[in-house]
Amino acid sequence: MSKLPNVGTTIFSVMSALAAEHKAINLSQGFPDFDCSDELKAFVNEAMLQGHNQYAPMPGLLQLRSAIAEKVEQLYQQQVDPETEITITPGGTYAIFTAIATYIRPGDEVIIFEPAYDSYIPNVLVNGGKPVLIPLSFPDYRINWEEVRSKITPNTRMIMVNTPHNPTGSILQENDIAELEKLVAEFDLLVLSDEVYEHLVYDGALHHSILRYPNIFRNSFVTFSFGKVFHNTGWKMGYCIAPKHLMQEYRKVHQYLCFSVNTPMQYGLAKFLETPSHYLELPSFYQQKRDYFLELMRDTRFTPLASKGSYFQLMKYDRISDEGDKEFATRITREFGVAAIPVSAFYENGKDDHVVRFCFAKKQETLEAAAARLAKI
Amino acid sequence: MSKLPNVGTTIFSVMSALAAEHKAINLSQGFPDFDCSDELKAFVNEAMLQGHNQYAPMPGLLQLRSAIAEKVEQLYQQQVDPETEITITPGGTYAIFTAIATYIRPGDEVIIFEPAYDSYIPNVLVNGGKPVLIPLSFPDYRINWEEVRSKITPNTRMIMVNTPHNPTGSILQENDIAELEKLVAEFDLLVLSDEVYEHLVYDGALHHSILRYPNIFRNSFVTFSFGKVFHNTGWKMGYCIAPKHLMQEYRKVHQYLCFSVNTPMQYGLAKFLETPSHYLELPSFYQQKRDYFLELMRDTRFTPLASKGSYFQLMKYDRISDEGDKEFATRITREFGVAAIPVSAFYENGKDDHVVRFCFAKKQETLEAAAARLAKI
Ligand SMILES: CSCCC(=O)C(=O)O
Ligand SMILES: CSCCC(=O)C(=O)O
Repeated sequence: MSKLPNVGTTIFSVMSALAAEHKAINLSQGFPDFDCSDELKAFVNEAMLQGHNQYAPMPGLLQLRSAIAEKVEQLYQQQVDPETEITITPGGTYAIFTAIATYIRPGDEVIIFEPAYDSYIPNVLVNGGKPVLIPLSFPDYRINWEEVRSKITPNTRMIMVNTPHNPTGSILQENDIAELEKLVAEFDLLVLSDEVYEHLVYDGALHHSILRYPNIFRNSFVTFSFGKVFHNTGWKMGYCIAPKHLMQEYRKVHQYLCFSVNTPMQYGLAKFLETPSHYLELPSFYQQKRDYFLELMRDTRFTPLASKGSYFQLMKYDRISDEGDKEFATRITREFGVAAIPVSAFYENGKDDHVVRFCFAKKQETLEAAAARLAKI
Repeated sequence: MSKLPNVGTTIFSVMSALAAEHKAINLSQGFPDFDCSDELKAFVNEAMLQGHNQYAPMPGLLQLRSAIAEKVEQLYQQQVDPETEITITPGGTYAIFTAIATYIRPGDEVIIFEPAYDSYIPNVLVNGGKPVLIPLSFPDYRINWEEVRSKITPNTRMIMVNTPHNPTGSILQENDIAELEKLVAEFDLLVLSDEVYEHLVYDGALHHSILRYPNIFRNSFVTFSFGKVFHNTGWKMGYCIAPKHLMQEYRKVHQYLCFSVNTPMQYGLAKFLETPSHYLELPSFYQQKRDYFLELMRDTRFTPLASKGSYFQLMKYDRISDEGDKEFATRITREFGVAAIPVSAFYENGKDDHVVRFCFAKKQETLEAAAARLAKI
């Protein structure tokens, strides 16, 4: 009677547990090994001490929503209405689930590109929908929009995109946006754009947030995470932006799913966002980490794939046998003391290109120690 | 295309907003107007400062789950396994939604007693289920188990109970438990027991937690809230307890709905639970408030209904016209400066017994000021 008969423990928990068991350096699950800002923690503590410990308004603290709207205007030249178009959520994963729960009914098809973050498919299934999977090809994982078009049926209700992309580090390009815009207009598709790594785009590239494109945005839910960008994944704070007519339905579900989100943390984040450098400095902060990690990994037998965004770096490993990527990831955790995520875990059919994902949101010394161990392989 | 065409803004937000607009004393939405423990806040701050700001384990921090298991054993003489039978959630509402999402499919019927907390019906509808409503009768709101039995069909999948009950303040009695046990055995029903007001039971009555009854518990999800009992509704922390075979399915949904819950708050709560007096003192703390409020209200034209639990007190008002309870609640907010919840809001068909709900989780002076205003009606 399971709605999710094939679901086991998420690969992120599996690999983190394995890393802990073997005292390995954990470059698997995506979270930083450095702490979030002391200033931000102090803001949260201040809010608790000031007695902001009861229910926040259902859509979130207005100060926080307004601060987000200002950031959106500054970064993406888009005006969104904090009153009606932004809702604070307990994390980015919840923000995604809720968008799906709001519109997906039994029989509805949802287009999902693979490799896919591992919550997408179960989220669609729990709501009775049908995931329509489009595998992207190693090594550059570009979207073939003709193929997308060929998968659209009268039941297609939603298309999910993710930029910057987890796990591949690719980002949507201008032509992707143009093609997506055409499909949305032609088939009136809903778009769910997972942009939890929004500030982590490198080499001066533009983050093509769906928020920039009114013709797509009018049909879109765009989801974000504070935890991913402000180094506090454990606070489980995120948000969703959607045009008013969609957000109205989203809030009907959210109102009765969770009602509201942690109040003192919302106060803290609202204050933290008042200083734009807190997010403006993120691209260079993480690019340095990526570059440093790539540099260190030159002494190993791993070959990096291009990573233009997110805090993940894919690496092809030298196959010495017919070992699959899951066995490889397990083996290097056990024997060499570094945990990574096998990319086949992001494919429903386990497609294995012998690639693993490393999270480089780590201290310099962690990256150094990990690379030194990986060089021994 | 709305999944919830009839859903508007929850009555709690509506009345709180009205109270704010008219600077009324807000006895409507259920939250305290006093602050949570300074010690508890300090524990959370300590956890943040110690760097506990990344993902907690998916089911929750083990320390916290173990502390809950100890409390359950002490209070309900039941052993639950913290590893496999307890999951921490972002609040009680989320805990309820997730149980429904885990098992309710299109066509499944869910028995819900009215007056019902206003998330229950939308939660069932979002998952495609069919709420089967059983109205309880004013003024004592006892369950007629023959009626329940008559509503069971081959599609009945779940029955929801809520003890102590919001909004009526009634509690499940021994005979209710006996009848529920029979039905569960006979029809293999799932039970969802909302016990968010667990410690708020008065006059020495026993809280008949479903956790006490293995024959019911084996088919049950039992949901709790830290916010409701530790005076920090805005932290949105709760949990669900269920036997392993049910919890396994629940976690599949939770894992991809939200993944995990606020880490520093979990550390803080785990430490706070180490001192049993923090919850053992709650019944007398809230009973004093209830008694004081009843005493003050003797000078008014309101007639109290029995409240055996929760932090709500129903009051029948003297009808001077054919004014419905919604109009009455609105009018006293505007004209007399005290906000309450009209109980008809808890009935799908708006059944109106001319009763309003007051929340007495308020400071002594707030209750005094409110009663003085209500005496003028
Ligand atoms: C929710 S645990 C997974 C963290 C993450 O986003 C990742 O590792 O990809
Ligand atoms: C989630 S807001 C409602 C608070 C509450 O439980 C109530 O007032 O009944």
